[in-house]
Amino acid sequence: MPAKATFITLTTDFGYKDPYVGIMKGVILYINPHAGIIDISHGIPPQDIMEASLVLRSSYNYFPNGTIHVAVVDPGVGNNRRPILVSTQYYYFIGPDNGIFSFAFEENHKVRHLMATHYFLPSEDSTFDGRDVFAPVAAWLSKGIDAENFGEPIDDYVKMSIPRPEKVADNLLEGEILSIDRFGNVSSNISRKDIKDLLNSEGPLGDIPELKIMIKGQEIRGLSRFYAQTFNKGPAAIINSSGLLEIYIYRGNAAKLLELKKGAKIGLMRE
Amino acid sequence: MPAKATFITLTTDFGYKDPYVGIMKGVILYINPHAGIIDISHGIPPQDIMEASLVLRSSYNYFPNGTIHVAVVDPGVGNNRRPILVSTQYYYFIGPDNGIFSFAFEENHKVRHLMATHYFLPSEDSTFDGRDVFAPVAAWLSKGIDAENFGEPIDDYVKMSIPRPEKVADNLLEGEILSIDRFGNVSSNISRKDIKDLLNSEGPLGDIPELKIMIKGQEIRGLSRFYAQTFNKGPAAIINSSGLLEIYIYRGNAAKLLELKKGAKIGLMRE
Amino acid sequence: MPAKATFITLTTDFGYKDPYVGIMKGVILYINPHAGIIDISHGIPPQDIMEASLVLRSSYNYFPNGTIHVAVVDPGVGNNRRPILVSTQYYYFIGPDNGIFSFAFEENHKVRHLMATHYFLPSEDSTFDGRDVFAPVAAWLSKGIDAENFGEPIDDYVKMSIPRPEKVADNLLEGEILSIDRFGNVSSNISRKDIKDLLNSEGPLGDIPELKIMIKGQEIRGLSRFYAQTFNKGPAAIINSSGLLEIYIYRGNAAKLLELKKGAKIGLMRE
Repeated sequence: MPAKATFITLTTDFGYKDPYVGIMKGVILYINPHAGIIDISHGIPPQDIMEASLVLRSSYNYFPNGTIHVAVVDPGVGNNRRPILVSTQYYYFIGPDNGIFSFAFEENHKVRHLMATHYFLPSEDSTFDGRDVFAPVAAWLSKGIDAENFGEPIDDYVKMSIPRPEKVADNLLEGEILSIDRFGNVSSNISRKDIKDLLNSEGPLGDIPELKIMIKGQEIRGLSRFYAQTFNKGPAAIINSSGLLEIYIYRGNAAKLLELKKGAKIGLMRE
Repeated sequence: MPAKATFITLTTDFGYKDPYVGIMKGVILYINPHAGIIDISHGIPPQDIMEASLVLRSSYNYFPNGTIHVAVVDPGVGNNRRPILVSTQYYYFIGPDNGIFSFAFEENHKVRHLMATHYFLPSEDSTFDGRDVFAPVAAWLSKGIDAENFGEPIDDYVKMSIPRPEKVADNLLEGEILSIDRFGNVSSNISRKDIKDLLNSEGPLGDIPELKIMIKGQEIRGLSRFYAQTFNKGPAAIINSSGLLEIYIYRGNAAKLLELKKGAKIGLMRE
Repeated sequence: MPAKATFITLTTDFGYKDPYVGIMKGVILYINPHAGIIDISHGIPPQDIMEASLVLRSSYNYFPNGTIHVAVVDPGVGNNRRPILVSTQYYYFIGPDNGIFSFAFEENHKVRHLMATHYFLPSEDSTFDGRDVFAPVAAWLSKGIDAENFGEPIDDYVKMSIPRPEKVADNLLEGEILSIDRFGNVSSNISRKDIKDLLNSEGPLGDIPELKIMIKGQEIRGLSRFYAQTFNKGPAAIINSSGLLEIYIYRGNAAKLLELKKGAKIGLMRE
């Protein structure tokens, strides 16, 4: 069981102009004025469960043990999709059962169906579980109520699979673009380990001129160790801060200039 | 008098790139390092007092008793519009006297003209009362200074009236669109109670096929109980989390697709 | 040496959709759960060091003594640009050595090159010093570790010079536009004192009809004392909340309507 929880993070697609985030914070503080509320992001594109999942996957384990991560990207609200509480060794996750916490299922975990309605906010509508279910349960959990009080364990929760790169030949790996950040840097599903495996290499990765990266008709040779290395040199590749292969243009917007979208294919060849 | 205040919320049209919000937080923490500062929204459209008022109306009473709600949407700053402090049974409101807190006037309330300049920040200019007046007064109030120390009660404060729906026939109600959220969901000024009155109905509202909703040449029949109910079905209507009639398109943007703007008329007919 | 630090502010160009800000907050709270983290802005345009510097310059000294200001606008990350800690009489600043803290060099200050890698987060990549260097150092500093433990003082740090207005004749001053805020208000590098010097005036500035302001072919006569003073009157000038000459249009967007960009010249003539 995670340590005593005091922090609650919020990741939503509510944006920054509407009252929804403020309402959730109010509900939490009403129940537990000592909770520390941390915004991870409210700029998730509307109803983009995958994007929310990737953002949370990148950040959740930097937080103190016991942190409660609440995520609300929830097109199925009010429908029969269940509200869930996931416990892992160090963290809690609260949100809709739509696959948004799938990354946590790779660790030891327990999933509970939130059923203890006396911890919910009474409500006449079924449109805002962030307010009525997730925020109050997070707040009560942060006050020390045991996870088991909120509902029974379930096994048939929804899993969302993040596409994995495919080895299409002994020297050729094909991955795809998973996310694009504010700088137009384009992150793939190819990890440092995937590249090491392709190169039959151990130890830290150097410049690796024998690696050819192909994307949208462009060829990139080898990896940069830091962004500024390719001053004035067009598209380049790097292992980014999440340990994933990323395409970037130094002081430029790679996504815009190369017209890259999520799902675009990226090929890696060992020559 | 509200309970001891420890939380201060901020609602402004300052956006997320300029230093104004950070400055207000600094001023508050300089005076009271123990204040808990909560952002409600800084994405209010520039100088849109009505929108700020609606956002705050939707969220203020989810916060703990004693919370101080500061709102700065203030085209009249420096002019003779007064800075005010509103006290209700459970909350405080601090901001310009431009009607932004009108929703609070529906409860028992007292309005004070902020006159005790020794609580203000000394300033050579008259362009940023958020920094010089509202933030410091909120901070001192959160430290336990009594409301009466900040200024004398006044009665002639500005009231902004939110348009009410009109009963144009025994079976016909005409309302209008008050706000549009990030999802393109369009919220009206017609409440659950207005609909019950139109239908001469008591108890919870069901699907009500006898209700016809007319907006921009579209006809919608009855109400959804949750968003996902209308998968692939075009425009639909629902009672939203604020208890108001809302037009939405499931996984679509109703405001864009129906070209709906704030102020657009919406008709309700009992058939 | 500044007072005991408990607050850490963040100013970045990370925007509001990606996980980077959340990650930095996690790292800080992991090390020091009692740190108070305050967002100044994450909406700095990508890699705009000058804009970040101006935002921080406008806000840093409103915070409690001992506050640690972390700024991450860092195109040179991973390169040989150094990570630094700047101490002034009341504040700390942590970030890249790229001139972003130049405003702090106008006070008594000491700059240290962050070298004590045992306070950093171990990392296999060199792309996110906000996470690996700046956040953990800020957190340890906020826990009471002395500044001198993080690295040796240096003298050859980067200074960025903010352009100063130029006196091109005895009665003519030429400045330029430094920043444009969300409202389209356009702030120059001409201070209240610069104007007093031009007018050979002491004491507070009044309407000063003898002052002619020239910008993009427009002439503005004198200064407003508050925004609403020029209701329906087109472009006007005011000393803004940072003490700088600002061009605005009441309830309009001066930057858009006059097509003003950063760097545009602004002339002041005493007639």
